[in-house]
Amino acid sequence: MPLKVYDDAYFMRQAIAQAEMAAAAGEIPVGAIVTSNDRIIARGHNQTEQLSDVTAHAEIIALTAAANHLGDKYLHDCTLYVTLEPCPMCAGALAWSQVSRIVYGASDDKRGFMRFGRELLHPKTKLEYGILHEECSALMTTFFQNKR
Amino acid sequence: MPLKVYDDAYFMRQAIAQAEMAAAAGEIPVGAIVTSNDRIIARGHNQTEQLSDVTAHAEIIALTAAANHLGDKYLHDCTLYVTLEPCPMCAGALAWSQVSRIVYGASDDKRGFMRFGRELLHPKTKLEYGILHEECSALMTTFFQNKR
Repeated sequence: MPLKVYDDAYFMRQAIAQAEMAAAAGEIPVGAIVTSNDRIIARGHNQTEQLSDVTAHAEIIALTAAANHLGDKYLHDCTLYVTLEPCPMCAGALAWSQVSRIVYGASDDKRGFMRFGRELLHPKTKLEYGILHEECSALMTTFFQNKR
Repeated sequence: MPLKVYDDAYFMRQAIAQAEMAAAAGEIPVGAIVTSNDRIIARGHNQTEQLSDVTAHAEIIALTAAANHLGDKYLHDCTLYVTLEPCPMCAGALAWSQVSRIVYGASDDKRGFMRFGRELLHPKTKLEYGILHEECSALMTTFFQNKR
């Protein structure tokens, strides 16, 4: 049986690398990537402070970059990996994109979209979470501990 | 008593003018403006087709333009006027912006954020709707009739 090199944990580690870039820039550390056929086609990290733009979340940056790359506003056959549960704005954007699959790491009970339910996503979008949960949660905990 | 020239209907007409620009470009006709102290500081209309970008809704374009204008990601003391009830993505973006007031014209029972409730907005944001409701609804009806 061949070894699957590119699994969800592999891609989530790439999203974590993006989150670390956000942290290094003083931004809340959230990172995202978009894959298509096991290839990374877009990356993004939170840049709300640097760009002074509340919409500059990792997911929005990654999904618009992926649409640019594909020349198509729809992300059919794509997976978005993100270190933190998306907020309702990002869930709404992902719904419009019709992305095939969303994988997130840490939960966000206060700001995450799950408070409003999966109906915020496109009905065809598959959802998984908890991948590298501890590493993804640690990003946030460490960031806010250092802020204090 | 002095006549108030710049009332909600006046500003909604400016948003309608934006929506008409979208329609002329073959886009679903939604327009938005942002005011601060009764001055228009940003305008936007739906450009999802032209930009091949699902996030290019009138509200997102107007709110990021307003933030650029102010040099501040928060839209305190601002009102966003939009011809159609915002979708959850736009409601979520408006929540992050902490905009003081949202005024929308026509309802969108299928795609609007109200299905999920006002909790999608920032608790301090005031909400009004139904301003120039007929004109705003007619924009959509006419557009989709011509599509058929």
